[in-house]
Amino acid sequence: MTQRLVVIGGDAAGMSAAAQVRRLRGREELDVVVFERGRYTSYAACGLPYLVAGEVASPDDLVARSPEEHRARGVDVRTRHEVRSIDVGSRTLAVIDLDTGDERVEPYDDLLVATGATPVRPPLPGIDASGVFDLRTLPDAAEVDRALTGAGTAVVVGAGYVGLEVAEALRARGAQVVLVEQADRPMTSLDPEMSALVAEALQRLGVRAHFGATVHGFDTDDRGSVRAVDTDAGTFDSPLVVLGLGARPASELARAAGIGVGDHGGIVVDRSMRTDTDGVWAAGDCVGSFHRVARRDVVIGLGTHANRQGRVAGTNLGGGHATFEGVLGTAITRVGDLEVARTGLSVAEAAEAGLHPVAVTHRSSTAAGYMPGADEVVVRVVCQAGSGRLLGAQIVGGAGAAKRIDVFATALWNDMTVAEVAAMDLSYAPPFSPVWDPVSSAAARAAVEVAAQ
Amino acid sequence: MTQRLVVIGGDAAGMSAAAQVRRLRGREELDVVVFERGRYTSYAACGLPYLVAGEVASPDDLVARSPEEHRARGVDVRTRHEVRSIDVGSRTLAVIDLDTGDERVEPYDDLLVATGATPVRPPLPGIDASGVFDLRTLPDAAEVDRALTGAGTAVVVGAGYVGLEVAEALRARGAQVVLVEQADRPMTSLDPEMSALVAEALQRLGVRAHFGATVHGFDTDDRGSVRAVDTDAGTFDSPLVVLGLGARPASELARAAGIGVGDHGGIVVDRSMRTDTDGVWAAGDCVGSFHRVARRDVVIGLGTHANRQGRVAGTNLGGGHATFEGVLGTAITRVGDLEVARTGLSVAEAAEAGLHPVAVTHRSSTAAGYMPGADEVVVRVVCQAGSGRLLGAQIVGGAGAAKRIDVFATALWNDMTVAEVAAMDLSYAPPFSPVWDPVSSAAARAAVEVAAQ
Repeated sequence: MTQRLVVIGGDAAGMSAAAQVRRLRGREELDVVVFERGRYTSYAACGLPYLVAGEVASPDDLVARSPEEHRARGVDVRTRHEVRSIDVGSRTLAVIDLDTGDERVEPYDDLLVATGATPVRPPLPGIDASGVFDLRTLPDAAEVDRALTGAGTAVVVGAGYVGLEVAEALRARGAQVVLVEQADRPMTSLDPEMSALVAEALQRLGVRAHFGATVHGFDTDDRGSVRAVDTDAGTFDSPLVVLGLGARPASELARAAGIGVGDHGGIVVDRSMRTDTDGVWAAGDCVGSFHRVARRDVVIGLGTHANRQGRVAGTNLGGGHATFEGVLGTAITRVGDLEVARTGLSVAEAAEAGLHPVAVTHRSSTAAGYMPGADEVVVRVVCQAGSGRLLGAQIVGGAGAAKRIDVFATALWNDMTVAEVAAMDLSYAPPFSPVWDPVSSAAARAAVEVAAQ
Repeated sequence: MTQRLVVIGGDAAGMSAAAQVRRLRGREELDVVVFERGRYTSYAACGLPYLVAGEVASPDDLVARSPEEHRARGVDVRTRHEVRSIDVGSRTLAVIDLDTGDERVEPYDDLLVATGATPVRPPLPGIDASGVFDLRTLPDAAEVDRALTGAGTAVVVGAGYVGLEVAEALRARGAQVVLVEQADRPMTSLDPEMSALVAEALQRLGVRAHFGATVHGFDTDDRGSVRAVDTDAGTFDSPLVVLGLGARPASELARAAGIGVGDHGGIVVDRSMRTDTDGVWAAGDCVGSFHRVARRDVVIGLGTHANRQGRVAGTNLGGGHATFEGVLGTAITRVGDLEVARTGLSVAEAAEAGLHPVAVTHRSSTAAGYMPGADEVVVRVVCQAGSGRLLGAQIVGGAGAAKRIDVFATALWNDMTVAEVAAMDLSYAPPFSPVWDPVSSAAARAAVEVAAQ
């Protein structure tokens, strides 16, 4: 009899899995059904700020593969279908067709939960007013775009990756932008001195940033539209507010079904992407992932992990063998003229993990100092006292700076010491780096620092 | 009694060593004397093409540290002094002062040979004519610059790194450039299909390249100046010829003294940079270096290795402990609008080493495909059949493409398989890469290819 795989969620993890299963097993062996709440599949949520900015021409550009294209490849995608509950005993789902309101019970042999993440929306007065947006979906972007037309000002709440990218996008569209962040600095996943460089870049962008400022609520007009944001740092008038407060794993459905969810809020999976429940798998932003340096499970919502985990789940569901080997917390972004990247642990994270960090900050150049395109790059290396084991790195600088983080990520993946990193044969030519690449010289400085202690 | 360290050669390796020794041991313990044939120390020879191109404003920009600056730091640099012979029995050198002609015998306790490399100049008719240049030194660059003023044409012989960089520099100065290369393609350290992309970039630069063309000699006028280059592909009139035929280790002085020189032409050293002769060390372009993938000693003249080896030698000579952990053959350059890089072994090199290579060529993008700055990148991955062990990689593409080679270099340094490379947590954001970085997706393709065999 034909088996039936059901996938909940038609984005990066779910559709990667579905496509991979289909590569390995034909339609006569296995039905693959995907229930997706929205109208789209497989779109690049990370591209939304660049769509708002006008850098990306059309929403269609962000759709990697439409529902029709998936169907043509033998994946039965049902958009506008929301799964309301999972019964792991009878291996069935309660599914509602959002267009007709019809509810049906759907059976599965194997189930992949790929429900993604839900934006954080604290219960503040007025937060549900019209004009207060998240930027998680293509419809969100269209709404922000509409609201932006005519609005000369915007307030962004939160100075993490999404908040900063949105602030830049709104500036690119000519808006006056106020950024409000509760922490005392932007990008708290960086060490404070690196955050300070990001704050300078925001200033150069013309973003009016207020750090250490708590939002108390949103004032609305009589039609229920937002008109101002109340904060510690003052009241900021604006008919447009974008929240960038992060996201939490959408694990409620799984939790309600008795599927194991960790303290981190993500569904607990093993390296094969199996949950603790027979026949149930999970992948993407809704799961906890093993952090190779912190040696514990963490929740990191990122398209790369979702894609890889989906492929791993799909390979195993398709009868192959694959494992997801964990994450490092690698991340990269652009803030105006500045590239910013990090991997592994910051000093605070390393200290919290009991790893006795030593850190150095090293200034170098993206190219040989005498070349016209040379730009400053600041590299911060975090390593373990005594052993010199690399624990993390942060890079901030001009064009060509940030992608160097991948060298540190590769070194971390292999448990290298900073002395070993400094010894490696990295590429050199004057248009691309000083004789000692910034990665090498920063690692060498860290090795000297460790030896001196 | 104060010991005496003598260094032969005042460039990257020699001066790195001298500076490092000085950091570790004071003047009262150790004299450090450097004999340098030329007038300059510590200058960036790799920057010479960019000086000729006019990208670098002044020759002084290429001098990292002048003789005076070294002297101020306690290193007794004697420029315009050439060492004629080494007597390892009596631990003395015969040194001539090139300005006065005086010859003296100089004692040493320890000797570091850092004589660098000598440009290859085949014994062709007319090769010593005026107007036929190497581009190895600051005076060479000044001469090429002088010859270029007025000359509307130039011929470059050799399509390796230096030849291509010089050809581009001469084009930047407005010259008509003919490039002649004996091999059937440029950059033979790449696999042929990658060389083909380089050849296209040369064409876009307006360089008239002739491959598979042997140079027979140089025609001269009655004043002994070059006026044409005779080749298989025709005779090319030009008052200016630049040779880019590579360089050989300058190991004659060591060989004549009985210091061990390998079949590769370089001085044989151990990981501490000791030669086979008591009290004699060597570093830089004049030595053979252990290739970590080929598992044998090779000669690779490159500023990065020279700097690292000099520092290792200096650390050991200063009473510390350091080792040079080998090379991967990592290299990078720019050819017009194209970035080009490689590391490890090409298919031909891997086959020659008996490693049964499997290779894939993968086309991807330097950024998310929907971003305006996205440019094509072609990644070639060479790995071992069966094991999937990474053996080498080559990258050709637009801005941001080539420095990704360092991720492969780091992976090679750690003996990773292509499947392991594909699994790593590399950075992703739309301005910097597709969701799967080109490194990851190329490695994943290679892993599939290995599994299918």
